[in-house]
Amino acid sequence: MNVVIAIDSFKGSMTSLEAGESASAGIRRIYPDADITIRPLADGGEGTVEALTLGCGGTRTQVCVTGPLEKPVLCSYGILDAGKTAVIEMSGAAGITLLSETERNPLYTTTYGVGEVIRDAISRGCRHFIIGIGGSATNDGGIGMLQALGFDLLDQEGVPVRHGALGLKDLAVISDSHALPELKECTFRIACDVTNPLCGSQGCSAVFGPQKGADPAMIQQMDQWLSSYAALAGKSFPKTNPAHAGAGAAGGLGFAFLTFFHATLESGVNIILEETHLSDYIKNADIVITGEGCLDGQTVMGKAPVGVAKIAREFQKPVLAFSGCVTEDAKACHAAGIDAFFPIVRGVISLEDAMQTDHAKQNMTDTVEQVFRMLRTFQNIK
Amino acid sequence: MNVVIAIDSFKGSMTSLEAGESASAGIRRIYPDADITIRPLADGGEGTVEALTLGCGGTRTQVCVTGPLEKPVLCSYGILDAGKTAVIEMSGAAGITLLSETERNPLYTTTYGVGEVIRDAISRGCRHFIIGIGGSATNDGGIGMLQALGFDLLDQEGVPVRHGALGLKDLAVISDSHALPELKECTFRIACDVTNPLCGSQGCSAVFGPQKGADPAMIQQMDQWLSSYAALAGKSFPKTNPAHAGAGAAGGLGFAFLTFFHATLESGVNIILEETHLSDYIKNADIVITGEGCLDGQTVMGKAPVGVAKIAREFQKPVLAFSGCVTEDAKACHAAGIDAFFPIVRGVISLEDAMQTDHAKQNMTDTVEQVFRMLRTFQNIK
Repeated sequence: MNVVIAIDSFKGSMTSLEAGESASAGIRRIYPDADITIRPLADGGEGTVEALTLGCGGTRTQVCVTGPLEKPVLCSYGILDAGKTAVIEMSGAAGITLLSETERNPLYTTTYGVGEVIRDAISRGCRHFIIGIGGSATNDGGIGMLQALGFDLLDQEGVPVRHGALGLKDLAVISDSHALPELKECTFRIACDVTNPLCGSQGCSAVFGPQKGADPAMIQQMDQWLSSYAALAGKSFPKTNPAHAGAGAAGGLGFAFLTFFHATLESGVNIILEETHLSDYIKNADIVITGEGCLDGQTVMGKAPVGVAKIAREFQKPVLAFSGCVTEDAKACHAAGIDAFFPIVRGVISLEDAMQTDHAKQNMTDTVEQVFRMLRTFQNIK
Repeated sequence: MNVVIAIDSFKGSMTSLEAGESASAGIRRIYPDADITIRPLADGGEGTVEALTLGCGGTRTQVCVTGPLEKPVLCSYGILDAGKTAVIEMSGAAGITLLSETERNPLYTTTYGVGEVIRDAISRGCRHFIIGIGGSATNDGGIGMLQALGFDLLDQEGVPVRHGALGLKDLAVISDSHALPELKECTFRIACDVTNPLCGSQGCSAVFGPQKGADPAMIQQMDQWLSSYAALAGKSFPKTNPAHAGAGAAGGLGFAFLTFFHATLESGVNIILEETHLSDYIKNADIVITGEGCLDGQTVMGKAPVGVAKIAREFQKPVLAFSGCVTEDAKACHAAGIDAFFPIVRGVISLEDAMQTDHAKQNMTDTVEQVFRMLRTFQNIK
């Protein structure tokens, strides 16, 4: 029996690899000789660096960079593919969880640290980037990142603009003449699951500004500044398109990637599935195991397990999913290719206990064991 | 596909029949044309009357009898088998839950009401009895029951002894000369899962006295009285054997059944399995479904699902169990013939919510659905 396991992390409980190994242990109790392959799974958000680094035999490295409010942060990222590919979560350098509730203010928060991480990776030889841009604290249109990578973003006096969205207010010049030359060789796959444009009622300021600490007046101002920024960029950078789906991701960081770099915005899941070559494994599988922390109606909306199921369906492989919980509307997952799903809780339990790592691992192993017991029992049943 | 379902009640949540119907609904979502038979299951304790009455097409009736402390109680019992068989839970007439904590006192609590229920059933034509004797509030050696059925239990003055264990103190005469004549035609299958003798350190006074409200002095007294009672009975009733396993069940009610009636003490589960003729159904099944509120290490100790599994094993049928929770030591159930088991909780949930009947039914249906989805998916997998 050939089993391929690709389970998304159970956020706050098990990494993708831990979930996969726990599932594998359950299978081995019933089929000790099964041919089991555990592949990393992530959706481009939290856990992406860990999943790809562990799952692809990469290494993790750390670099101290400028945090969202200047205070230094230690950002961990992954290097794969014999050193050519870097996997970065922008939230590790400019994420909202790096700030307290009261610190959140997009006028000041910057993506400068994101640029510093990229620069560090370039200096180590990386030329291909996988970047998850969820969870940002910023609304600076990516100008911080650009500055960290050598772009000139100047005011009318020729002075570099300050950090944060406030820098956009004074912006008069955008130039890549001093940008890191290696950037021309670099490609960026940006894991982006939002489709917001840069500006307007569906733009980043209006939609995501409030959760980053913006009040209505700030939202209006920032939206105008981003609009002017796009207009300015359009004069020199032909790819400029503030209406591009996802330009408004991560406070306009999406726009910066699209406009100034060789970048594509893609579904996070698809990037991870491709970069981990999951289909190469699934095509030889008898059974595919997937899952995530909670299987619900959202799961069918492009989340990781359904991405796995889509590949499995191409090869007509059966798919079982395991999760911390399943909601009533998880049934939509069946149409998306998940043949059956099983919650791993074993009885009444508090959220805290259920999420405790050792407990979750054991529950995963025990649940998978029972499902494979059943499989063994019924192999001969018509 | 022929499926036989026999699930014990989820105490406080679903009856045996509700659990069975909910499981059936889950199967029908996947196999609409399955041939599904739902049979009642119980262990001789709470839920036995309900399971057998509903599951065997019997009727329920009620009779007002003397409660454990004289206050009248309405006791519900079942009549099956075209009126020939009565199913009675002794706790309905003399149960500990009929009393408050402070009312509990085995010196006074009586089994008189149990005898009244039997008398009522006899008057309706019943000659075969299935009686669960768990949960008693009494330690009267069954003398109350005997009195209600016409036995003379008299003191040295020839006056009927009073109710409760105190009656034993004055007991000088036991005679069945005025006992209901129909008793000679009656057979009693007593569901009894304890093996305690009537007296001594493992006797009913010492072991069960404390939970019925006895203090150490009372325990010693009652043990002596029961011993004298057995000695007195031995003079006229040849079956007298206070050392018989289970004689100490229900405060010596087991002894009374064994000594004065045509009675056997048996595992509650076995009685139910035989009386419901479960094996006749299982022998034609493709799959057997069982379960109970909590599957744990106790389950293998003669509880209902393992009884079902034993029958299934005789006919080499696969057995799946569903329960509100499964504990780590539930794995012992595999050796006892349960091929795989599945908890029905779908995620983090409070005990109260999990036990809410509608919620439990839905969880049962949803869980069974997924298991049968998997079955359908893998029918062709090697």
